Amino acid sequence: MSRPALRLSMLCAALLLTPAFAADPPPPPTTQALLDASQAADWRTPDPDNLLYIDLDAGRVVVELAPRFAPAHVGNIRTLARQRFWDGQTIYRSHDNFVVQFGANVEDGAAAPPLGDALAQLPAEFERPADGLAFHRLPDPDGWAPEAGFADGMPAARDPDKGLAWMAHCYGVLGAGRGMAADSSNGTELYVVIGQAPRQLDRNITQVGRVLQGMELLSALPRGSGPLGFYEDASQATPIRSIRLASTVPEAERTPLQVLRTDTPLFDAVVESRRNRRDTWYLHPAGHIDLCNVPVPVRTPPRG
Amino acid sequence: MSRPALRLSMLCAALLLTPAFAADPPPPPTTQALLDASQAADWRTPDPDNLLYIDLDAGRVVVELAPRFAPAHVGNIRTLARQRFWDGQTIYRSHDNFVVQFGANVEDGAAAPPLGDALAQLPAEFERPADGLAFHRLPDPDGWAPEAGFADGMPAARDPDKGLAWMAHCYGVLGAGRGMAADSSNGTELYVVIGQAPRQLDRNITQVGRVLQGMELLSALPRGSGPLGFYEDASQATPIRSIRLASTVPEAERTPLQVLRTDTPLFDAVVESRRNRRDTWYLHPAGHIDLCNVPVPVRTPPRG
Repeated sequence: MSRPALRLSMLCAALLLTPAFAADPPPPPTTQALLDASQAADWRTPDPDNLLYIDLDAGRVVVELAPRFAPAHVGNIRTLARQRFWDGQTIYRSHDNFVVQFGANVEDGAAAPPLGDALAQLPAEFERPADGLAFHRLPDPDGWAPEAGFADGMPAARDPDKGLAWMAHCYGVLGAGRGMAADSSNGTELYVVIGQAPRQLDRNITQVGRVLQGMELLSALPRGSGPLGFYEDASQATPIRSIRLASTVPEAERTPLQVLRTDTPLFDAVVESRRNRRDTWYLHPAGHIDLCNVPVPVRTPPRG
Repeated sequence: MSRPALRLSMLCAALLLTPAFAADPPPPPTTQALLDASQAADWRTPDPDNLLYIDLDAGRVVVELAPRFAPAHVGNIRTLARQRFWDGQTIYRSHDNFVVQFGANVEDGAAAPPLGDALAQLPAEFERPADGLAFHRLPDPDGWAPEAGFADGMPAARDPDKGLAWMAHCYGVLGAGRGMAADSSNGTELYVVIGQAPRQLDRNITQVGRVLQGMELLSALPRGSGPLGFYEDASQATPIRSIRLASTVPEAERTPLQVLRTDTPLFDAVVESRRNRRDTWYLHPAGHIDLCNVPVPVRTPPRG
C-alpha cells in the first residue's frame, strides 16, 4: 500500500518523532520493536523430527508437523519421508484462494510408490481431547469455535464444554487429503492452504502441521485450469525433488530457524500490537484480531 | 483435498442417493444446485462504466468499481483509465499473503505519466454514511465491525450507532495506495488483496472495487524478494498492457459477465449452503461463515 521509503519513514516516525512530554505514557510498541527487544527464551527451535523439508527446484519449504494433533498421521508421514515416498512426485493442484495439493497423484495412471513400512489406513484425527494440551487463548471471539488460540505453535480452536481441541485451517496449514470416508487419509496426499482461511474444513479433515518458511514457493504457483484447480496438463505440475525429515538431513544441509513461542508475555504483546496497530500510518486501530491474522514470526537463529 | 472423481461421486451421492423416505424433509440444496436453479433476475450485469479491464500478457482481470463507496476515487480512476494512464506501467509489488500493487511506480526514477484531467488530490474515502446504502446483512457476527454483509455487491461492514458503512478488505478487493496522510491517495497506485483478509486496513484506506474475474492472474504472480514484496529487479515486474473502462472498449472485445445479486433470497440460500455445507463430504457443518468466505459467483451470460 505504501512505498518502502514511506514505510521506513513511518517506522522512524513511530520510533523517533513521538512527542516526549513527560506526562505522556510511552506509546505501545510496534510488532517490530517487540521482536527487536525479544530474548532468547522467547524463541524455540523446532525438533528436527517434526520438520519436513519440501525441496523444489525453486527452493525449500519448511513445515513443522503437529504430532500432538495428529499422532498417527505424523507418524506415517515420518515413515513416508524416511522412505523418500514423495521424491519425484509433483504438486499437481493449485486452486486459487484455496489449496495447493501434492503427493502421489495416481490420476494420470501412474502407479503410486509402494507404502513400504507406512500404514495404508489411519484413524481420522479431526480433533483431540482438550485435556493435556496447553492452549494459549486469544483475547477475541472466534466465529467458528468457542475459543481460538495457539497450541504447540499451531493455530487451534477449543470447545471447553465438549473437552475438544483441533487445529484451525489458516493460511499455510498442512492437511492430509481424504476421500469420502473420514478415515480415508493416510498422509500420502497433502495440501497447504493458500487463500482465505477455509475454516469450514475444521473438524472435517486431519491437519498435520504448518509451513514455517517458503510459503511463497507454494502460494505463487500458477493455478490449475481444470476443475478444482487440478492441472489439465501434467507438464504444468511442479516436480518435488524430495521431501525429507530434517532429522535425516546432514547438519550442513539443514535450514536453521527459530519460531516465536506462542505461550509467552511477548507473544501476547505481539498479538496486541497487531490487534491495535500503533504505527502512525494507522488511523483507526481495529481492536480485534482473527486467529488466522496472527503472525508467528520465524527467524534465522542469531549468531553466538 | 479430494480428487475430481471423488467430488463428482460426492455430488452424485448428495443428489441421487439420499434415502427417499416419505417423512424426511428434502435435504438442503448445495451451492451448485442453487446456482443451477437460479433465475435471470438473480443475476445482474455490471454497468460498463463501473468495469475496469486490466489486460496483462497472461489475460484479463475484470474489476468492478464501487462508486457509492469511493465516488471521488472512482471518478478519478475512470478519468485515468480513459487517458490510458496505466498502459505500459507495471505490477511492481507482490507481497505474499497480503497484496499485489501496481500503477506508476516512480521508485525506479522514471517519471510518472501526466495526470491530465485527473485530480492530484482527493479526499480520503474510508467510510460513508450508512443512510442511503442498501445493506444486506449476513447472519453471523463479525469481529471487526458491528455488522457485516454486502452493499452494491461489495463485501461491506456497517456501524448503525455511528451511521457509517465501509468496504471490507476481503480477498480480491481493490484499494487505492496512500502514504502517511489519509488523503494522499489519488487512485494512480492500486493494490489487490491476495491473502488472508487484512481487515485491519478497513477504515484506514480507500477501497474502490473488487476483482470479478482473473484473480489468478494476480494472486499467482511471483512474490517480490525485497522488503514488503517489492521486486528488487525491475525486470521481475509484470507489464500492464492496458487498463481501460469497459465502456470505452469496442463491444466485440468486452468480456460478457454477470454477477450473482447479493440482495436476494437466492443469495441468502447460497450463504446458508456455505454456512452449513451439506455435500456428504462434510461431517461437521460449521454453522458460521465469515464475510470474506462468502463467494459471489460470476458467470458468462447464458445464451438467448
